[in-house]
Amino acid sequence: MVAVELAETGRSVRAQCRDGSFSSQTSGLAPGYVQANIVILPSEGASDFQTFCQRNPRPCPLLAMSPSPGDPTLPEVGNDIDIRIDLPKYRVWRDGVLAEQITDIHQLWQSDWTAFALGCSFSFEEALMDAGVEIRNITEGVNVPMYVTNIPCASSGPFSGKMVVSMRPMSASNAIRAIQICSRFPSVHGAPIHLGDPAQIGIADLNKPDFGAAVYVAPSEIPLFWACGVTPQVALQGAKLPLAVTHEPGHMLVTDLKNTELAIF
Amino acid sequence: MVAVELAETGRSVRAQCRDGSFSSQTSGLAPGYVQANIVILPSEGASDFQTFCQRNPRPCPLLAMSPSPGDPTLPEVGNDIDIRIDLPKYRVWRDGVLAEQITDIHQLWQSDWTAFALGCSFSFEEALMDAGVEIRNITEGVNVPMYVTNIPCASSGPFSGKMVVSMRPMSASNAIRAIQICSRFPSVHGAPIHLGDPAQIGIADLNKPDFGAAVYVAPSEIPLFWACGVTPQVALQGAKLPLAVTHEPGHMLVTDLKNTELAIF
Repeated sequence: MVAVELAETGRSVRAQCRDGSFSSQTSGLAPGYVQANIVILPSEGASDFQTFCQRNPRPCPLLAMSPSPGDPTLPEVGNDIDIRIDLPKYRVWRDGVLAEQITDIHQLWQSDWTAFALGCSFSFEEALMDAGVEIRNITEGVNVPMYVTNIPCASSGPFSGKMVVSMRPMSASNAIRAIQICSRFPSVHGAPIHLGDPAQIGIADLNKPDFGAAVYVAPSEIPLFWACGVTPQVALQGAKLPLAVTHEPGHMLVTDLKNTELAIF
Repeated sequence: MVAVELAETGRSVRAQCRDGSFSSQTSGLAPGYVQANIVILPSEGASDFQTFCQRNPRPCPLLAMSPSPGDPTLPEVGNDIDIRIDLPKYRVWRDGVLAEQITDIHQLWQSDWTAFALGCSFSFEEALMDAGVEIRNITEGVNVPMYVTNIPCASSGPFSGKMVVSMRPMSASNAIRAIQICSRFPSVHGAPIHLGDPAQIGIADLNKPDFGAAVYVAPSEIPLFWACGVTPQVALQGAKLPLAVTHEPGHMLVTDLKNTELAIF
C-alpha cells in the first residue's frame, strides 16, 4: 500500500527504483503515465536496431532514444532520467541468452551504449478501460496472451523474425470501439493488426500462447490482435549480440509523459 | 456517357433533374459530392420525424432540413436547391403505401411541408474505395444487401421500428481500415455498428437480405454491418401518415457539399 501511495507519478516511481526501494512490476503504478519497453545496445547493433524499429513501427514504436551514445538520459520522455538505475529490474543478454536479472546496470554501462524506449500496451489498455471496455487479461489477473505469428518483420542487419501479437477478446461492439480508440495511439502499437480467425496469421491454438497466459474467449466474442512489444525482444534474442540489456518483462520505465499526450486526435 | 460527362458537379446533376433531362440513378455521378436521402413531410409528422432522426443518429444522420415549413430550399447543403424538382425521381406515399413514382412534386408541394436530407453510404463507400478497400456490392454491380435487425430504434411519435443495416464483407485488415475510415464520417452513418456473427443482431441468413441483393462472402471474410438510411423509410411506412414523399431509392439529391468536407478529423 505504501508503494502505491508514493508511486503517484513517473518521477516518484523512478525515485524508488533509483534508491533501491522498488524492484517489482509497474503495472497499475502511476496511473495516466506512459510506461515504456527498454532496449539498450552497444554501438554494435544500435544503428541496425533503430532502423528495425523504423521499419516495423507497429510492434516497435520508438518513443525516444539516447540523445547520443553513452548519454544515460532520455529527455524526450522525462526529466532527469538515468536509464542505468531508473528501471525496477533489468535483463542482461549475452550472445542472445539471458545471463542476469539485476536492478542496476551502472557498472555495465559503456560510453558507446544507446537506450531505446518503445511504446507499451499499458497506455492503450488504460484508454480502453477508461471507455468501459473490459480487458480480459486484467479481469483474470494474468499476463496478456502473446503469440508468434506468420507475419514477417522487415529485417535490419542482424534483426529479423516474425511479429509477436497480444490478444484481447471482445464483443463486436467493443471491438469496433477498441479499433477507434487505439487508432488514436499509434505510438503505443495503434489499432489491432488482425481480428477474427487466428489461423489467418499463423496462430494454431489460442489456448496455447507462446508468452503470457491463455484467457477465456466466449463463443460470442472476437479475438483482437495487436502488434506486441515482445517482437523486438525476440528479434534481439535472434540477433545473438555479445551483449544487450532490456527491462525485465512488466518492469517498465515509468516516464513523465501522460498517456493522453500520445493521442493523435 | 453524355450524362456522366455533363454531371460533374452537384449543381449540374440538379440542373438536369430540374430541366427533365435526367431521371435515373445517381450512383457514380458527380464524384466527390455528397448525395443525400430525402424525406418530405407535412406539418403532421415533421416535428416527430426530426426528433426520430435526433434520437437515432446512426441510421438517420440529419444533414439538413428546410429553413422553415414550405421553403423548398436546403441552403445547408447547396445553393439554389429546389427540393421540389431537383431530384431525379420521387416516391409519393399515402397511408404508408407507395402511391406514385414521379419526377416533379411541384404540384403536390404545400406551405406546411418540410424536407429532410439524410447522409448516405455513397460518401463512405467513396472514402473506402479511395483507400483501396473493395466494396463487394460495387464489384458485383448490385445494390448493397440490407437486413432488418433486432435492434430497436428509439421511437418518436408515430415513428419507430427496428434498425436496418447494410452489409459489406471484408478481409480482417480491410475491416480494421474501414472502421478507421468510416469513424471519420459520422454524418454518413459512421463506423459499422456490428461485425461478425449476423445472428447476434437478428439476421438469420446473409443470403436472404430484406432489401438489395445478396453478395458473395468468402470464408476468410468478416461481414461488417452499417446502420442504413432505409431505416427511416421503414419507420415512415410504419407510421402510415396520410401523405409523405421520399426520393426513389438510388435516385438521390446530389448536393454541393464535398464528401471530404464531412470528415471530422
